[in-house]
Amino acid sequence: MGCIVQKYGGTSVGSVERIQNVAQRVARTVAAGNRVAVVVSAMGDTTDELMAMAKQITPYPSARELAMLLSTGEQVSIALLAMALQTLGCDAMAFTGSQAGVVTDGVPCNARIAAFNANRVKEALAAGNVAVVAGFQGAAACGEINTLGRGGSDTTAVALAAAIGADSCEIYTDVDGVYTIDPRVVPEARKLVEITYDEMLELASLGANVLHPRSVECAKEHGVIIHVRSSFHEEIGTLVKEDTAMEKGTVIRGIACDEGQVKFAVLGVPDKPGVAARIFSAIGQAGVNVDLIVQSIRREGENDILFTVAGEEYEKVHAVLEPLVQELGARRLQHQRGLAKISVVGAGMIDNTGVAAGMFQALANAGVNIEIISTSEIKISCLISDEGLIAAAQAIHAYFKLHEDVCYPE
Amino acid sequence: MGCIVQKYGGTSVGSVERIQNVAQRVARTVAAGNRVAVVVSAMGDTTDELMAMAKQITPYPSARELAMLLSTGEQVSIALLAMALQTLGCDAMAFTGSQAGVVTDGVPCNARIAAFNANRVKEALAAGNVAVVAGFQGAAACGEINTLGRGGSDTTAVALAAAIGADSCEIYTDVDGVYTIDPRVVPEARKLVEITYDEMLELASLGANVLHPRSVECAKEHGVIIHVRSSFHEEIGTLVKEDTAMEKGTVIRGIACDEGQVKFAVLGVPDKPGVAARIFSAIGQAGVNVDLIVQSIRREGENDILFTVAGEEYEKVHAVLEPLVQELGARRLQHQRGLAKISVVGAGMIDNTGVAAGMFQALANAGVNIEIISTSEIKISCLISDEGLIAAAQAIHAYFKLHEDVCYPE
Repeated sequence: MGCIVQKYGGTSVGSVERIQNVAQRVARTVAAGNRVAVVVSAMGDTTDELMAMAKQITPYPSARELAMLLSTGEQVSIALLAMALQTLGCDAMAFTGSQAGVVTDGVPCNARIAAFNANRVKEALAAGNVAVVAGFQGAAACGEINTLGRGGSDTTAVALAAAIGADSCEIYTDVDGVYTIDPRVVPEARKLVEITYDEMLELASLGANVLHPRSVECAKEHGVIIHVRSSFHEEIGTLVKEDTAMEKGTVIRGIACDEGQVKFAVLGVPDKPGVAARIFSAIGQAGVNVDLIVQSIRREGENDILFTVAGEEYEKVHAVLEPLVQELGARRLQHQRGLAKISVVGAGMIDNTGVAAGMFQALANAGVNIEIISTSEIKISCLISDEGLIAAAQAIHAYFKLHEDVCYPE
Repeated sequence: MGCIVQKYGGTSVGSVERIQNVAQRVARTVAAGNRVAVVVSAMGDTTDELMAMAKQITPYPSARELAMLLSTGEQVSIALLAMALQTLGCDAMAFTGSQAGVVTDGVPCNARIAAFNANRVKEALAAGNVAVVAGFQGAAACGEINTLGRGGSDTTAVALAAAIGADSCEIYTDVDGVYTIDPRVVPEARKLVEITYDEMLELASLGANVLHPRSVECAKEHGVIIHVRSSFHEEIGTLVKEDTAMEKGTVIRGIACDEGQVKFAVLGVPDKPGVAARIFSAIGQAGVNVDLIVQSIRREGENDILFTVAGEEYEKVHAVLEPLVQELGARRLQHQRGLAKISVVGAGMIDNTGVAAGMFQALANAGVNIEIISTSEIKISCLISDEGLIAAAQAIHAYFKLHEDVCYPE
């Protein structure tokens, strides 16, 4: 008898009928002889609708009350799903994040899970119930309701799987699994059988929206095997796990694309300690995540600092930088919109030379110019123009033969 | 500086705009130098909508999950009202029933308040906050979410007022206060300045829908003064309290009307111990509240037992009684639909003779026939036909001169 955590997102529980479909799927898993704990998100657009009501009152709702408001969304889903399971003859108990034992760190709307005291869930499972747990929420030790921020429900599912020692954690989505690249960009994209945590982390961080990086980190930390699969059919999806023995030798696992970037360039910055820290702490305080950062020497005693942020952050960053550039005595502030980031990811890259060269060659063959290059141990990212993205993606995917099962760089 | 509990029902918080109106009213009370705790219901039809979703899944949703589902309604209202108050510059904290310290008895959808540990609310008030508390809900000692059943939010408000020692408990409704009779039935109806707990209890139990009897009982038990008033204007409403010194001498306080009753008659029941108990415990087990009960002797060794229930309970009661009548050896089961109950209520009635006679005379003058008479120390109820109700109400109201301030029976 296996113990399985299943997580269904907002689209999968978007209506009463869909909740009943999810219940049937869970019931089949139970009938196959498994203990099942289910994590669900709020129904469809509920979270957005609640947020809209709050914004109707004030553009800056207090975080404490916002968390209290948004957490009602999952509470509705768990109650309805438990009822639907009971109607199918499955014993089921619904648990809010607080009741399930999700102890959060006290940051109301962007909390992290500090501990998962899953005793009540374990007891419910041992007594033959399906445990239906609210994703995206928990309670601080003082009893205050917290929500987990983006990717919260995936993280709840992985943390729950770790806490109850589940055999696997199935994340149901509207895609079939993790692909070598977004199939809408490159139709030859191949579904991966397996992927390592680190590779998935890089892909997730780079804009592949299948799993949130937080949930992957949590799975890596606790050795939870994630099974990303479709909620529309029963086919096997992609396993996210430590060792991908079946595909040993794979150098490049996949390609991530991220459109709508803006590049800022602070030119002619005096070359002295603390300048970069001033720039990026100011941007961080404005609540903006910086993506790629490149610094190069312009001439003796002066640097150019380049970095990218998501396009919608342009105004905030510009407002922060303009006074700062004067204050730091930099020569000029430039920016360029309409850029895309394309990245190749693969744990095998560490032991293989030639991956970077191959990527640049593929881009050159496609006639795509490179604005910025940035690398880590298991990925290479290039900033290119938005218009060149599809050609670049297809060229790189073909160059590394990602449509084939095992692929080496040439 | 006074300490005031205010309770706003679902209609008063039925939209974001109305929540903002409530916030302004609360803010004015704070600005006048009071500490204020606010109890709110779910927005408008939210509870009905949630119930409809549950019923779409199953006609018999589990009580535990239903309580979890319905309790989200108030959680949304308190979060939004707290935000609206903060936007007006009023410090405010929202509390779910559980967080406010409402400890319930563990009956999921029809719980009673076992204790109110209001320390967090008191601390919030002492720190200068408006405490915004979810009505209609609490948590059992084990942490399970319970809802309070009908009239729950009024009861939460009264219990909170008792727990924090508030000076008064203002219940805001869509009427101006408690009237001598429903003004839609008798336009000469007069708004009462004061009414005693016992009188209010009788009126509430008899179908005057201003306050739920549970909240009045709780107020009586703890000496909480209830102020029933309109949420549409600032006029004083009606005080519900122990001593109504200002109106000493009032014999009849008001008249309650209750349409759509059905009368059952079990005729020719053997006159032996335990027969009535058999009948009414069977009806009670079917979940039906019996209203009036009258037993009279038909002939030697046989009784007739008559009772009334709400019209919508007809099917249930009939299904229970039909086999039982045979089993008990009774002669016949009869029923009559389309009946109404009209009751006069007044604490002064105890020391006054002639009230019953006056009521019967008024009914006779109006040409209304009496089916059943039932009395308690402070009320007299007559069962009449639905069609005669308005004429009867107007005749009794005029007979006892209830449109005048102080009234004696003639």
